[in-house]
Amino acid sequence: MYDLLKTEERAKRGRFQTVHGTIETPVFMNVATVAAIKGAVSAQDLQQIETQVALANTYHLHLRPNDKLIKELGGLHKFMVWDKPILTDSGGFQVFSLAHRRKIKEEGVYFSSHIDGSKIFMGPEESMQIQSNLGSTIAMAFDECPPAMADKEYIIPSVERTTRWLKRCIEEINKLNSLETTINNKQMLFGINQGGVIPAIRIEHAKVIREFDLPGYSIGGLAVGETHEEMYNILEEVIPHLPKNKPTYLMGVGTPENILEAVDRGIDFFDCVLPARNGRHGHVYTNNGKLNLFNKKHEKDMDPISKECCCPTCQRYSKAYIRHLLKAKEMLGMRLCVIHNLYYFNNLMTEIRVALDNNEFKSYKKKRLKSYKNLN
Amino acid sequence: MYDLLKTEERAKRGRFQTVHGTIETPVFMNVATVAAIKGAVSAQDLQQIETQVALANTYHLHLRPNDKLIKELGGLHKFMVWDKPILTDSGGFQVFSLAHRRKIKEEGVYFSSHIDGSKIFMGPEESMQIQSNLGSTIAMAFDECPPAMADKEYIIPSVERTTRWLKRCIEEINKLNSLETTINNKQMLFGINQGGVIPAIRIEHAKVIREFDLPGYSIGGLAVGETHEEMYNILEEVIPHLPKNKPTYLMGVGTPENILEAVDRGIDFFDCVLPARNGRHGHVYTNNGKLNLFNKKHEKDMDPISKECCCPTCQRYSKAYIRHLLKAKEMLGMRLCVIHNLYYFNNLMTEIRVALDNNEFKSYKKKRLKSYKNLN
Repeated sequence: MYDLLKTEERAKRGRFQTVHGTIETPVFMNVATVAAIKGAVSAQDLQQIETQVALANTYHLHLRPNDKLIKELGGLHKFMVWDKPILTDSGGFQVFSLAHRRKIKEEGVYFSSHIDGSKIFMGPEESMQIQSNLGSTIAMAFDECPPAMADKEYIIPSVERTTRWLKRCIEEINKLNSLETTINNKQMLFGINQGGVIPAIRIEHAKVIREFDLPGYSIGGLAVGETHEEMYNILEEVIPHLPKNKPTYLMGVGTPENILEAVDRGIDFFDCVLPARNGRHGHVYTNNGKLNLFNKKHEKDMDPISKECCCPTCQRYSKAYIRHLLKAKEMLGMRLCVIHNLYYFNNLMTEIRVALDNNEFKSYKKKRLKSYKNLN
Repeated sequence: MYDLLKTEERAKRGRFQTVHGTIETPVFMNVATVAAIKGAVSAQDLQQIETQVALANTYHLHLRPNDKLIKELGGLHKFMVWDKPILTDSGGFQVFSLAHRRKIKEEGVYFSSHIDGSKIFMGPEESMQIQSNLGSTIAMAFDECPPAMADKEYIIPSVERTTRWLKRCIEEINKLNSLETTINNKQMLFGINQGGVIPAIRIEHAKVIREFDLPGYSIGGLAVGETHEEMYNILEEVIPHLPKNKPTYLMGVGTPENILEAVDRGIDFFDCVLPARNGRHGHVYTNNGKLNLFNKKHEKDMDPISKECCCPTCQRYSKAYIRHLLKAKEMLGMRLCVIHNLYYFNNLMTEIRVALDNNEFKSYKKKRLKSYKNLN
């Protein structure tokens, strides 16, 4: 399903076939937390900004409106009116970052909903059932995401449990995919590599999970507090131990700089809330660094955020207008910034793919990293 | 500039030529308070929902970002990227409803900004200057909007002052339109009829202001607390005393029922915040009455808000999805509802115009008023 089209040293240019269409990699997935992009952006808008994959959150959708309802209504694709690939996370990360009164046991995690405090249990089987109900293209394995900088004594048993959970996820998804009532019985499962910032544990875990021959592998538990250098170091150590002919996914990353560095180390898939979150705060991306549109210097600036940008926002609206909207707390200001930022990330990935196609990734990366320092 | 194409008893079907294009009447103007529709709706969105005229608020834009800035940037059309007609109100209504520590004098009104408390003066000349700076298609005269149900003793001197203010508005707009630096020197001025719910005062005032031979006349000071019957009665009394060959504008009105009744009494122009405000609260219009999308009965309803609606929301999204977005407090839910509601009002006006074209307005009105009672 994954064709490795080109490589430039460790950087990979791939093509991943799914039941919901082809994904050209490297790719940045756009985060539609509760089946909508924050900032009043719809699936229809995503079609206009080169989005290839939407990412939806299992934990959030389980709590509201509930995955069983979504299944009854025909699945997430039909619900949010999006026919391209959707990746769902496992819920694990949110259980560990959002939920209250959390207790980790061998069978799974007991916790309270951050919305209404109701008691919930989620283990590997429950996560797979929820993701199957949603009918996503790619499901993620249920794992524990240990705290940033956890020590060996914490991480070793945690990773071992994550491996046992992965086995249960595989059994459960195979069972679910064989049922007639399953919405997407071609749903794929990606395994997740853990191990904190300890290379030996990461490598050992990668060797274990690659044996399951899953359709893809992700690297989780990074971008949670460690330095960029530690993250890049882990990528360098662990990626050679994951299959080259399968997509690799760096979860929750990151800045344009992070993406360029991670592609260079062999990553195919990315996701991050940063472009949408920054957009809602009037921080917008350009090839010359991030701009804060609240800054007074944009007050009379009738140029678009970026003259070289082809996004729907830059095709029509000026910095002066968007700044006014943001200052007047008009939702439209947020929407225009989020659309620009998502397009910026999607287009960055297009440029990366073109550079890889032309064997020019290294020089493209160098040029782009340099341009980000020309703060305007 | 105004062609009266057809009449059906007092109902008028008109065509109004402006420097920014033709307005087919009766028309519902879409309220873009601070140069944006509340609910993350852009001028570009308005183009897709049959909007003919955008209405912007002088008071709000004077306070933020300031009309002088907008003039410096080329005017409101360029600022918000909308090339069709824009009507600006005079600021008077907001001065009387939003501003603090208000003092009315012969020269104008002293008040404090509701944003930062700064002291501001606005009189007829200032209102015209601000509207000229904005460069709107149609400017409104600066008037006093007396409190609902004010008595004769209050209203008579108030209306007399409004007439004196109108003369000053006319002098000022003529002066401004003759300046080379004026953005739109074809800016038109509409006069405003006042007089509370006292027919004799309303009629007397209408006779006075029609003598100024302005391009259009509006009826202000209604929909501020009086009953619908009182409002309809005033329309019946006063409209025969306004020129039939000029557009008439009923300010701040209203519900679909109000619009049908007012068209029947000779009104051409309408504006109201209701469809956008209701949309933001999940209340949506249909031919069978308003729906509250928060209602649990819509939880599993995969039908659009209205199967007969051609708006961008109904073409794609279900009640179940929009309800989920609203409950999850996703801005997208509000946006989808506002777009639907504005389209509903715009399309209602299209249907009214078609009915008038076919001499079927009376039966159309009857059918529509009946259908609104079929609450679903």
